[in-house]
Amino acid sequence: MSEGLGPINNIAAELAKLPSIGRKSAQRLAYHIISMPVESVQALSDALIEGRRAVRFCQVCGNYTVGELCSVCADEKRDRTKICVVRDPRDVAAMERMHDYHGLYHVLHGVLSPMDGVGPGDIRIRELLTRLHDQEVTEVIIATNPDIEGEATAAYLARLIKPLNVRVTRIAHGVPVGSDLEYADEVTLSKAMEGRREL
Amino acid sequence: MSEGLGPINNIAAELAKLPSIGRKSAQRLAYHIISMPVESVQALSDALIEGRRAVRFCQVCGNYTVGELCSVCADEKRDRTKICVVRDPRDVAAMERMHDYHGLYHVLHGVLSPMDGVGPGDIRIRELLTRLHDQEVTEVIIATNPDIEGEATAAYLARLIKPLNVRVTRIAHGVPVGSDLEYADEVTLSKAMEGRREL
Repeated sequence: MSEGLGPINNIAAELAKLPSIGRKSAQRLAYHIISMPVESVQALSDALIEGRRAVRFCQVCGNYTVGELCSVCADEKRDRTKICVVRDPRDVAAMERMHDYHGLYHVLHGVLSPMDGVGPGDIRIRELLTRLHDQEVTEVIIATNPDIEGEATAAYLARLIKPLNVRVTRIAHGVPVGSDLEYADEVTLSKAMEGRREL
Repeated sequence: MSEGLGPINNIAAELAKLPSIGRKSAQRLAYHIISMPVESVQALSDALIEGRRAVRFCQVCGNYTVGELCSVCADEKRDRTKICVVRDPRDVAAMERMHDYHGLYHVLHGVLSPMDGVGPGDIRIRELLTRLHDQEVTEVIIATNPDIEGEATAAYLARLIKPLNVRVTRIAHGVPVGSDLEYADEVTLSKAMEGRREL
């Protein structure tokens, strides 16, 4: 028994594979799960496997969906002249929470990262170019993260897309709303100065 | 789509029911799970439900087990004259990690808590008394938590058990090893003074 029972350790080991769950919290969660009613554990277990099975990628934009097209691509009211390029489906959810953008999305499923061996062929760049050729898109907004890989990917895409006579924009970098100037890092501050606008 | 897809929200909702997992981390974990290979999600889902189904209570001490008896009760080499009383199976695991105690356990599955309506009939006190009558136990070590309910339970058990001519002891309270006196609370410090020993 010394280190807990086999089945409990199994649960803990599986949970510890998830991000931000360490060995200790995995153990605590496993003990909690063992003490839950069987039906509740069944509900959790079903939600996981059925959720994973039900969700697939939108054929057009690469976002998560349960049907052929994701709800954004299927929505007739969205502005089909704008495509916002993001790294992963989580970012689509973040953008949609703002309720302010009415165009389409394109999910790259990664960013260029030579260090990790991720090249242009490994992320959904070809699919983006196909969409630009086929559709009436006039602006591509690149919303990859403001980190090295995100910036490199943005620069790479801009170079590819500009010759197609499509406007390429990048989301603004600057001081987050509600934050304190004192705590902003130098790069963010310098980006904020660079992107300053007339009032 | 505004707030994420149904199946992803289901996963997040189930995960958010677990202790120490908030709404935001549940959402992040759900997105991670959707991006995992189906086999890994299946493994996690199976570990949960099979683990929950396999584990039951030891008929003697109330610890978690997969067989009739838990590995402690089944172990011929354990000292059957000592029983350490703890609140739940997690505490058995904690005690066993210390590799220093060779007696048996008794899991109460709770502590007395009039505020929450938990009385002596709701925790496994009767089972403990039966064991004391039937077996050759000479010492009961009460290792409930050093909080109000744990102390009250310890006092209650001591009053019940002493008349049976069994020694009743309580684990020591004091300053945790490796901690800093400066950060110890007053009650702990006073307990540490009270329990001081000759060097």
